[in-house]
Amino acid sequence: MLDELKILYSFLPRLTCGGDVAVGPGDDCAAVRIGDGVLLLLAADQLIEAVHYDPALVSSAEAGAKLLKRNLSDIAAMGGFARFALVSYAANGKPSDEVLNFLNGIADEAERWHVQVIGGDLAAMPVTCGVATVASLSIVGTVEESCILRRSGASSGDLLCVTGSLGNSYASGHHVSFLPRLAEGRFLAEHHYASAMMDISDGLVLDAERMGRASQVEFVIDLDALPLRDGATVEGALTDGEDYELLFTIPKEKYAALLKEYPDQLAPVTVIGRAEKGAGVWDSECRRDLLKGKKIGYVH
Amino acid sequence: MLDELKILYSFLPRLTCGGDVAVGPGDDCAAVRIGDGVLLLLAADQLIEAVHYDPALVSSAEAGAKLLKRNLSDIAAMGGFARFALVSYAANGKPSDEVLNFLNGIADEAERWHVQVIGGDLAAMPVTCGVATVASLSIVGTVEESCILRRSGASSGDLLCVTGSLGNSYASGHHVSFLPRLAEGRFLAEHHYASAMMDISDGLVLDAERMGRASQVEFVIDLDALPLRDGATVEGALTDGEDYELLFTIPKEKYAALLKEYPDQLAPVTVIGRAEKGAGVWDSECRRDLLKGKKIGYVH
Repeated sequence: MLDELKILYSFLPRLTCGGDVAVGPGDDCAAVRIGDGVLLLLAADQLIEAVHYDPALVSSAEAGAKLLKRNLSDIAAMGGFARFALVSYAANGKPSDEVLNFLNGIADEAERWHVQVIGGDLAAMPVTCGVATVASLSIVGTVEESCILRRSGASSGDLLCVTGSLGNSYASGHHVSFLPRLAEGRFLAEHHYASAMMDISDGLVLDAERMGRASQVEFVIDLDALPLRDGATVEGALTDGEDYELLFTIPKEKYAALLKEYPDQLAPVTVIGRAEKGAGVWDSECRRDLLKGKKIGYVH
Repeated sequence: MLDELKILYSFLPRLTCGGDVAVGPGDDCAAVRIGDGVLLLLAADQLIEAVHYDPALVSSAEAGAKLLKRNLSDIAAMGGFARFALVSYAANGKPSDEVLNFLNGIADEAERWHVQVIGGDLAAMPVTCGVATVASLSIVGTVEESCILRRSGASSGDLLCVTGSLGNSYASGHHVSFLPRLAEGRFLAEHHYASAMMDISDGLVLDAERMGRASQVEFVIDLDALPLRDGATVEGALTDGEDYELLFTIPKEKYAALLKEYPDQLAPVTVIGRAEKGAGVWDSECRRDLLKGKKIGYVH
């Protein structure tokens, strides 16, 4: 196993902030200035067989689609439009039709979301690797600098909300069948409702802690308010991960307008807590530390 | 082994051309319109241990630098500016410091070329893979739509040129130590000297055949004119590959001006042949078919 955290914390200072780079590492996407108030959103994500998916349970086409959707969820989290994708694919021991199914899974999903797959790279891994697939996708999006949403925008007093429902993602198949919340993220960004936003990939508590840290607030969560996915427990909604829902904050005074204006066809929004002065993630009823015992900083 | 060609030819039609996409698959980079006559250049390339480099001969830092430079060579080939990079890295059985050396190799090289590494993804491969490294880098550049150089711009009568020298890349260490020809590519594009351009990664003959096919011309090469790298044979200059030099065509009437204006500090340019009506790549002296026996369409 790689000591991913140690490597990441050593390398992160080498990544660039400042200058052309409006948003550096630590958000769902990096954002760079390309003129006229428009930012380019850039992110990359990998999908590795037997690490991120079990090939006995997930078809190659579903895996390809999932790789794209994980990246789309990152664009959604910034309030942006997804535009272009580059795909790198390396494998050993895979028949050509399975490789093609994976790539076509990406291309089919890309069409659905009006994303253009414009290039990439295909390579063989050494036979000593056994049966293996390593795929990486880079996503390119755009967002107005006046609309972009970051993890750092939450203020004490803001309401904490999620789209859709949480928990039981793996057993329910949601981790494969989910719809990236592009329209929801865009609505919240374009109409300036949200103050901070990210997607929930590693579980509500871990991801809320990251948003709280970036915004220098604590989050107090009402466990009774959590929207549970079919078969999910409250504990699962807090920690299961792979929800690919949006977690966002909204100033209290804007919430009535959001309720009124939010389109019916979008995934429903639920208020699950609030931001306060402090640090950490807490149960609103008994002020239990929800982070206790959680492995913080999981690198997905 | 993957049947890369079969897969590629099946999947290529799914890649996008048209609309926002000014240059689709088949060039060194894709190019997309982002407004104001500026194109975004996008490309991805992989580096796989024991496939693209031998870890006994190439250090992790050198491998990381090479991954970036291969991508920079693709930007150079379009006449563009290299701007941003995203890095995906997956490995098993690698100590943390070796992983960091690889990533720092990318970051050091990026600084040298004023490229900003703005994000990426780090993941573990399954232990069943044995010792393995799969790295992918996506490069983002820019170029004016009025300056971009493609493979398809050569006309019958144009001179065929290369920068630097060719052959013996592997034994000489050039495949690791090479300098991407960004300044050279930019000069040729900005001053509208070149009519078509690409980088030589798979060997002069194979790459010239691709340019000829894209431009619907044949190339006639003067073997005596080939600039040989130290230790290279003529055969090696034609076929060794990993040269990372620029191959370009220039209208005959512009060549005198190029000779006069070309800056001394850039890699020297040599005329190695000419474009004519036809197809293929030929020896100018005896009209020997230089493609004969060559494996065409190698996917690097």
